Amino acid sequence: MDNFKIIEIKKSVFENNDREADKLRDELRANKTFLLNLMSSPGAGKTTTLKATLSRLKDEFKIGVMEADIDSDVDARTIEQSGIESIQLHTGGMCHLDAGMTRQGIDEFDANRFDLVVLENVGNLVCPAEFDTGSSKNAMILSVPEGDDKPLKYPLMFTISDVVLINKIDTKSVFEFDDEAVKERIHKLNPNAEIFFISARTGEGVDAWCDWLRRQVNEWNK
Amino acid sequence: MDNFKIIEIKKSVFENNDREADKLRDELRANKTFLLNLMSSPGAGKTTTLKATLSRLKDEFKIGVMEADIDSDVDARTIEQSGIESIQLHTGGMCHLDAGMTRQGIDEFDANRFDLVVLENVGNLVCPAEFDTGSSKNAMILSVPEGDDKPLKYPLMFTISDVVLINKIDTKSVFEFDDEAVKERIHKLNPNAEIFFISARTGEGVDAWCDWLRRQVNEWNK
Repeated sequence: MDNFKIIEIKKSVFENNDREADKLRDELRANKTFLLNLMSSPGAGKTTTLKATLSRLKDEFKIGVMEADIDSDVDARTIEQSGIESIQLHTGGMCHLDAGMTRQGIDEFDANRFDLVVLENVGNLVCPAEFDTGSSKNAMILSVPEGDDKPLKYPLMFTISDVVLINKIDTKSVFEFDDEAVKERIHKLNPNAEIFFISARTGEGVDAWCDWLRRQVNEWNK
Repeated sequence: MDNFKIIEIKKSVFENNDREADKLRDELRANKTFLLNLMSSPGAGKTTTLKATLSRLKDEFKIGVMEADIDSDVDARTIEQSGIESIQLHTGGMCHLDAGMTRQGIDEFDANRFDLVVLENVGNLVCPAEFDTGSSKNAMILSVPEGDDKPLKYPLMFTISDVVLINKIDTKSVFEFDDEAVKERIHKLNPNAEIFFISARTGEGVDAWCDWLRRQVNEWNK
């Protein structure tokens, strides 16, 4: 069963991360590989959302997953068990991935063979927002239990995300969460952000998000 | 109403953070000021837990709160409204506080006049775990919606925390969360960790946690 790799990522040597990110993005586009950078707090449901997403798209696209974590291989095992090829990236205590680190994963994974590669970033709303990974699009998940005030506290994350998934909407009965307030706060930071309300667990709303992702991948790889 | 300060924290100049942390801790002890470093993911309920805690302890101790955030003053305002003196520390994008940064807050707040100072750290399970702030004790909150696997993914945070509060237990009906598994995972990393199951919202379990904190403050300041 242990057919996934664990890669110990080294610190990048590049001074200009934005330039390296653009270079990686151009190469991925030339190779018709769409890279989705998926970010969130710990426990917002990145892996569960990913499983729900991949089960809907795996017959259309050749998909690979890179799971970044400080430690452990819990997520890569979970993804592998759902029949999707994955590798685990260990960041050795670093709280984010930059473009050079992402490239190490891409190279080790031989990721150009995929139509869609998902990078599950380290669970953190601060550091990952500061480093362009070279991704085609940035997605973030905000879960209902975290509260509708998170755009006020972690503005950069919401500013750099092309799409925001509001997850765990099936738990709304036990939390105070204002849909309209959160949309307004997100759009004030980032007027173009797409917002989808989903429950990765029940599947509610996941099709609409997958339609959006499908369009992005097709547009990128055409 | 705007009687709280916002401090823009500068990057520390000290090379040896551990030494600076020990120095600050010694000074605080000499001044009979207990510093609690409170950490968690975004949205785990630090501010709500703090409000529930302070309402139980404010007649016994002179208490001040330092709210660290990348941006915004939402939390400091919330605490101030509950009648507790507070200041907001802005970290300017930095995802943690070290001892030098904590000292800037302590100095600006004139914090030696308090018996108990709570530092609400930046919402993040990675960076804050790596820097000793000079606190008397480290507390962290893991909320039920985040899942019982977090000790596997963020081991350092659980290793350096003297006490772990498992919050939002009132929402257990809508989440899968294994109390015994989480206790076992925490104690494997940190056999001495105290663990309390609480709901900051309903108040369940909060008295037991406050008893523990009261003992620590009295022990430190005697």
